[in-house]
Amino acid sequence: MRVGVVGASGYVGGETLRLLVNHPQVEITAVTSRQYAGQYLHRIQPSLRGFTDMVFSELDYDRMSDRCDIIITAVPHGSATEIVKAFYDRGIRIIDLSADYRLHDPAAYDKWYGWEHPHPEYLKKSVFGVPELHRDQIKDSQLVSCPGCMAVTSVLALEPLVRHKMIDTDHIVVDSKIGSSGAGSGQGTAHAMRAGVIRPYKPARHRHTGEIEQELSEAAGSKIRVSMSPHAVDVVRGILCTNHTFLTQDTDEKSVWRIYREAYGEERFVRLIRDKKGLYKFPDPKFLVGSNFCDVGFDLDEDNSRLIALSASDNLMKGAAGSAVQNLNVMCGFDEMEGLRYTPLTPV
Amino acid sequence: MRVGVVGASGYVGGETLRLLVNHPQVEITAVTSRQYAGQYLHRIQPSLRGFTDMVFSELDYDRMSDRCDIIITAVPHGSATEIVKAFYDRGIRIIDLSADYRLHDPAAYDKWYGWEHPHPEYLKKSVFGVPELHRDQIKDSQLVSCPGCMAVTSVLALEPLVRHKMIDTDHIVVDSKIGSSGAGSGQGTAHAMRAGVIRPYKPARHRHTGEIEQELSEAAGSKIRVSMSPHAVDVVRGILCTNHTFLTQDTDEKSVWRIYREAYGEERFVRLIRDKKGLYKFPDPKFLVGSNFCDVGFDLDEDNSRLIALSASDNLMKGAAGSAVQNLNVMCGFDEMEGLRYTPLTPV
Amino acid sequence: MRVGVVGASGYVGGETLRLLVNHPQVEITAVTSRQYAGQYLHRIQPSLRGFTDMVFSELDYDRMSDRCDIIITAVPHGSATEIVKAFYDRGIRIIDLSADYRLHDPAAYDKWYGWEHPHPEYLKKSVFGVPELHRDQIKDSQLVSCPGCMAVTSVLALEPLVRHKMIDTDHIVVDSKIGSSGAGSGQGTAHAMRAGVIRPYKPARHRHTGEIEQELSEAAGSKIRVSMSPHAVDVVRGILCTNHTFLTQDTDEKSVWRIYREAYGEERFVRLIRDKKGLYKFPDPKFLVGSNFCDVGFDLDEDNSRLIALSASDNLMKGAAGSAVQNLNVMCGFDEMEGLRYTPLTPV
Amino acid sequence: MRVGVVGASGYVGGETLRLLVNHPQVEITAVTSRQYAGQYLHRIQPSLRGFTDMVFSELDYDRMSDRCDIIITAVPHGSATEIVKAFYDRGIRIIDLSADYRLHDPAAYDKWYGWEHPHPEYLKKSVFGVPELHRDQIKDSQLVSCPGCMAVTSVLALEPLVRHKMIDTDHIVVDSKIGSSGAGSGQGTAHAMRAGVIRPYKPARHRHTGEIEQELSEAAGSKIRVSMSPHAVDVVRGILCTNHTFLTQDTDEKSVWRIYREAYGEERFVRLIRDKKGLYKFPDPKFLVGSNFCDVGFDLDEDNSRLIALSASDNLMKGAAGSAVQNLNVMCGFDEMEGLRYTPLTPV
Repeated sequence: MRVGVVGASGYVGGETLRLLVNHPQVEITAVTSRQYAGQYLHRIQPSLRGFTDMVFSELDYDRMSDRCDIIITAVPHGSATEIVKAFYDRGIRIIDLSADYRLHDPAAYDKWYGWEHPHPEYLKKSVFGVPELHRDQIKDSQLVSCPGCMAVTSVLALEPLVRHKMIDTDHIVVDSKIGSSGAGSGQGTAHAMRAGVIRPYKPARHRHTGEIEQELSEAAGSKIRVSMSPHAVDVVRGILCTNHTFLTQDTDEKSVWRIYREAYGEERFVRLIRDKKGLYKFPDPKFLVGSNFCDVGFDLDEDNSRLIALSASDNLMKGAAGSAVQNLNVMCGFDEMEGLRYTPLTPV
Repeated sequence: MRVGVVGASGYVGGETLRLLVNHPQVEITAVTSRQYAGQYLHRIQPSLRGFTDMVFSELDYDRMSDRCDIIITAVPHGSATEIVKAFYDRGIRIIDLSADYRLHDPAAYDKWYGWEHPHPEYLKKSVFGVPELHRDQIKDSQLVSCPGCMAVTSVLALEPLVRHKMIDTDHIVVDSKIGSSGAGSGQGTAHAMRAGVIRPYKPARHRHTGEIEQELSEAAGSKIRVSMSPHAVDVVRGILCTNHTFLTQDTDEKSVWRIYREAYGEERFVRLIRDKKGLYKFPDPKFLVGSNFCDVGFDLDEDNSRLIALSASDNLMKGAAGSAVQNLNVMCGFDEMEGLRYTPLTPV
Repeated sequence: MRVGVVGASGYVGGETLRLLVNHPQVEITAVTSRQYAGQYLHRIQPSLRGFTDMVFSELDYDRMSDRCDIIITAVPHGSATEIVKAFYDRGIRIIDLSADYRLHDPAAYDKWYGWEHPHPEYLKKSVFGVPELHRDQIKDSQLVSCPGCMAVTSVLALEPLVRHKMIDTDHIVVDSKIGSSGAGSGQGTAHAMRAGVIRPYKPARHRHTGEIEQELSEAAGSKIRVSMSPHAVDVVRGILCTNHTFLTQDTDEKSVWRIYREAYGEERFVRLIRDKKGLYKFPDPKFLVGSNFCDVGFDLDEDNSRLIALSASDNLMKGAAGSAVQNLNVMCGFDEMEGLRYTPLTPV
Repeated sequence: MRVGVVGASGYVGGETLRLLVNHPQVEITAVTSRQYAGQYLHRIQPSLRGFTDMVFSELDYDRMSDRCDIIITAVPHGSATEIVKAFYDRGIRIIDLSADYRLHDPAAYDKWYGWEHPHPEYLKKSVFGVPELHRDQIKDSQLVSCPGCMAVTSVLALEPLVRHKMIDTDHIVVDSKIGSSGAGSGQGTAHAMRAGVIRPYKPARHRHTGEIEQELSEAAGSKIRVSMSPHAVDVVRGILCTNHTFLTQDTDEKSVWRIYREAYGEERFVRLIRDKKGLYKFPDPKFLVGSNFCDVGFDLDEDNSRLIALSASDNLMKGAAGSAVQNLNVMCGFDEMEGLRYTPLTPV
């Protein structure tokens, strides 16, 4: 499969390339960067030194369409609307890593992003790229939009609970903690001011809320609101979502496990985590670095009829590049783990 | 004022000594450690090198009672029940940093700690050591029990909201994030397994919940339950409490600020934090290291009628040793900032 | 190839298994741990969850010899002397990750480790497992001893310089910086006391010095002494060696590059690093995490006729498990990169 | 004493203000920042929130000269040449934290900084601000130039050895490790790319080398060269210098201690560190955070006739703002510890 990557100089682009250079069924045929056109990839993406001699090129729609069967776009939010449309109109399949085609409702772009979507008619062509939820649609789709890192991590923990009507959908609190690579290259705070933070950076109205609400509303069959608050912590990769929910009925551990096993028992990239003691009792992104897993676990707080659903992932993998490759595998009919058979690095 | 410290070899004991060696109205007259009796303080507490030549001694109730006007106990939970009683019965004033005299209801020890309190009749002699809430009682008390680090940080954000009946007391979610020094010396996980974690370590039934419920129930005038979940993050000092609450009525930023200003306008160690942009918009323990402040701020999530009350502190300071010294100042009639005029270290 | 791992519960053992589960020509046929016999691997090595259902067993020489073609031993220093001999005598090929068969001179064990080697006659059967230096011997050896992480990293930078008599062998200063995973599981300092350190932990007489001296003396054709000082820094994985050397003759950048290119131009796991500007000018272990590379670079200090040779690696990979698998590939005639085609994770 | 701070929006300026607001004999009478003129200090320096209501002003030489007895300049290197001269010519005493008046030899600015000093005749008016070496000159000087953080830390370890001719001055290797706050605010690398580094950033020709050579040459009575290589490590505050030296004669621990005790026995801010075991055997900047100490220790490597002199400090304290205040105390005849009685924060 000939794959091109647009906007490959950032962290997500670099991680995508890292996965693609070792993917046995992929040939990288074009890599673009406005800023670094003409330079060797490995000058900007040091991981790739020794793995490729490719050079960044300028974005040329016709040339890329000739050379590529699939395009992965890893450009900043708001910059993908035209690029995706251009390739779409040329009949190319696209996996978009920006937020620009994630939300189905055009009005949601006004609400969460503050701009009007220039191509609202394309939104319905896009599938929300979580194979665990939408595998069949992804298979045949021409345009797949990869979810936000906090969205996919949270949704995988919450969707089965909402679908089974186990939880009070008026009080869903998603408290997220995320590493600095989530900010994107060239955006991050300097180390001296970022190290050691436990910083609430957008306690209300964070953009990923819109995606979570979209997916959970679909699961519930009715409009659901979610209370999401992200925090920056001192780690480079990793995201933990502590999803605080309140039960609508009495339940027990066994029943909750049954629901999760039913949802994810066959899934390769969702692991259910529960140890009785030690350091691995609950999901923790420390033990997911470099892998495409989303670990899911939970605890019950009987005093408060609370179910704390916990989910963790590597924000550059399942939260971005890993999802892109997983979607690519689904779209191309490859084994879904192809190019993604990475165990987490431990300890790191 | 002649002060003795019992159990001074740990992190909290060391921090207490750090504050006392520079307190202008305090003379440290005894320092005990079972494990290190006979050794120089600075061998175990390297901060004190050059500040004191004292030597750890064994705990001797009579000798210490002769030498000290006030005793600060910094021993592990469960180990202070007898020590506190012994000094109390000798008429000595005590500031206890363990959890052993924090809860007023003896049954709460069964519930949260799993043991029966051996001296339940002393629990009512103890004042919960948060001057911002109980200053008058602390002044004249013989026994003051310093709060848990997560409890004091959370309670300072929530108490005014509960007292003013602003929030739905059936859905109070306290999501805490804390550094590794909170584990105590000799308890902590090795660096390789603790670095980079975002680890939910007790999503339900954490012991500090009992203290928060006690204090908020008092503020509410009725029994209140709290949903608390702590997380370990990669920082040594610091705690952030994200207190997710749901409003019982419409409100606006101004009204919430008014409530907080009314509560803390005169307080020296509670700072109300709100910037429009930049890195200091909300409380962040990074900017509190080494100081006795608890910073409080909030955000409103109109979509969900949610008020996110945020509070941060240095868990070894306001969360432990700083509170002890602040209580000492109140008990002794000193200026409450005496020995605590530390600005936070920034950046660190 | 059927491979067994003895002592697989630590960091190095876990990393070895991480590599082996994905090695296309390896079948893991036995895994031992005294402490965890009977337990699932993934309980102790969380990375492996979902990759294997194996269970730790007790060490049984006969049973393992039946089941395995090659044994990798990852037990603590001093514990491998008997284990290695037992398998050796049964005709099994062994890759030893301890220090017990690294030094050829029995007297060196007295000097560097303080104990007498119980099987000095086996020392000469062992090859020092750096394929870049001893590939031909490794191919046919029954016993290969993997180098210490600081030793291999330092030696790869220094060997070509010594061999070409470029540097004054009386003043070789190796200043090493290493992460906390180097301490081994169960050995590490608690996070609160290890975070933020820049700690000189053995400025003189560190054990890896013996290995460096052995290899450089061989390259020089005469006995060479090395001044090695290791430091603990706040990172989990990674080692940097700053090898300060003094030139015996005038030289220039080009000539030094020529020497390094001649030495490593064909090597797959040694990369020569030099950028004119930016973050990748010199080797930095941050950009090697999870990979088997040793990056080598240098700078010239004309004022002092000094050549600063810089080398970096992941101490659990090229510094341990990666070397083991690379040696396994050489011993078995596999492609040397088999099972080791990992790009570094960036950023992490 | 009325003190003004020029360029107070950076890390060093903020740390200087942190010390001054609590200095009992200092009144801060003016604080300038071009970028933030008109804004509250605490908006930019969050540590000061609650400690001052001052506002940044523009730099106005006449107005500041009226209001201040002493000026501390904390502007970037190269920006202080005119500012210092302007105040000097107005008869104001100045403590300069830039490098602009550190080197006595005008030619050294060409060599180390690449620019010609515009006021070479003022260089001889400036005293190198290390009270431990130049206290008497500092007392009466109108212009004191605070040393670079790596320079002062290294020099304090090496000066006594050089002065006593104990070490071979042709092979002095200074291997420095430093935290991210040393880069200055607005200069630092983003967290994702800086976390976890062990990065050699200027192995040869680092600018602080010039200062070290100046001071050691003075101690030796002849021109000395130093081989300095700095490294960035993952810590915010702190610097360790591993000073590798070779002995000119046989010596033992006792003799080296005698030399250090003779040099620093009376000094308040140099602590000699040596424990037999544990975590505090050698200097480590982790145990110096927030304090003005420079800890000095050493180890002997008999095999190589090597003396490893180790020195550590907080780069924003003894390495910058702390030195400024210490110099201020000396210049004003205050107790040298005034405003600097901070124990290190431990753990942090």
